Amino acid sequence: MTEAPSERTRVKRRHDRGKYDAETVHGILDAMPICSVGYVFKGTPYVTPTLQWREDDHIYWHGSSASRMLETCVDADVCVTVTMIDAMVMARSAFNHSCNYRSVMVMGKAYIIKDPAEKEQHLKAFTEKLFPGRWDILRPVTAKELKATMMLGLSLDEASAKIRNGPPGDDEEDYALPIWAGLIPIRTETLASTPDARNLPGLSPPAHVTSFKMG
Amino acid sequence: MTEAPSERTRVKRRHDRGKYDAETVHGILDAMPICSVGYVFKGTPYVTPTLQWREDDHIYWHGSSASRMLETCVDADVCVTVTMIDAMVMARSAFNHSCNYRSVMVMGKAYIIKDPAEKEQHLKAFTEKLFPGRWDILRPVTAKELKATMMLGLSLDEASAKIRNGPPGDDEEDYALPIWAGLIPIRTETLASTPDARNLPGLSPPAHVTSFKMG
Repeated sequence: MTEAPSERTRVKRRHDRGKYDAETVHGILDAMPICSVGYVFKGTPYVTPTLQWREDDHIYWHGSSASRMLETCVDADVCVTVTMIDAMVMARSAFNHSCNYRSVMVMGKAYIIKDPAEKEQHLKAFTEKLFPGRWDILRPVTAKELKATMMLGLSLDEASAKIRNGPPGDDEEDYALPIWAGLIPIRTETLASTPDARNLPGLSPPAHVTSFKMG
Repeated sequence: MTEAPSERTRVKRRHDRGKYDAETVHGILDAMPICSVGYVFKGTPYVTPTLQWREDDHIYWHGSSASRMLETCVDADVCVTVTMIDAMVMARSAFNHSCNYRSVMVMGKAYIIKDPAEKEQHLKAFTEKLFPGRWDILRPVTAKELKATMMLGLSLDEASAKIRNGPPGDDEEDYALPIWAGLIPIRTETLASTPDARNLPGLSPPAHVTSFKMG
């Protein structure tokens, strides 16, 4: 990916928080599959949540072939944003309260992946990224399912990360006040899995279920 | 708020998952302050993460008076989306994998809140909503800080929720396969707070810190 910001992706407010290197951008995209896809339909902005996955210097997302979001994004300008809040930052004034966060914004024209074999390869990559080893134990995907799936890709050429990490930054004179300040750390927790009521007897959750993490 | 969907907010895909009642919409907005604000700048969609808070039938967000996002949103069409993932839904085929989620999409024209006294009232409401009792122990907000803060509001007139909740939905014949299916529940966890290194001696974290929850 291009490691210099474009005019569109350069972080403008608090540019000290902007990062453009692949390691940072990939790390955030890989940690958090939930993303928000922004697009314009009839002149109006829409933001649709979905899951993204990264392969090399591209991200992908998918859904029903009947999805208006996906259809509208084909060959159109989109903005895909991924955000994790790591802590509430409690300061001595309301004004200096903040959050510690990691976010990535990717801009560009989304493209459609039409070839069924290529689609299947990407679906496998998505499944294996979230749940290593799962693809091969699943009932194989069918041609009908591939047809019912629309898949989009987006280059990371115009991607930027923005990160805040650290203690509250108070006005110097406020540090003398007897007000508790500090961080409330926040994370995404995965709880113990619950088996489907219709599982066949004797099945245990595979390692890709018991060790699943995100965030 | 209007409890019937507008043309723009009616859930199109999986309309059985759409909800438009105030209780559902308010519940999701109140549970999750992190939101994604979608807007159009020079014809291109942008999605910026920030925090929102609800008061009655409006949501609000704020930031620096120098923020391009905020400036661009004034009197412009925006789409604010809030999303929580509650579980990864593991099925017997890749195609039937899914997520349990709760999301809200609010569309409409954002408006600016200019009056300093009104701004301060909303800042208090925001602070108290996240951290009950904190506003009164903080160093009071100054006129300069209010001036440096831009605040936007958005009516919930055009709001919709979309929810998936439940077990995997597999193809009938796939239930006979010896494949582990089920849910991996996901939640937002708050960890023990960490005091700022510059706190005065003897301060303990207030209840609004130790009992803080989101999601």
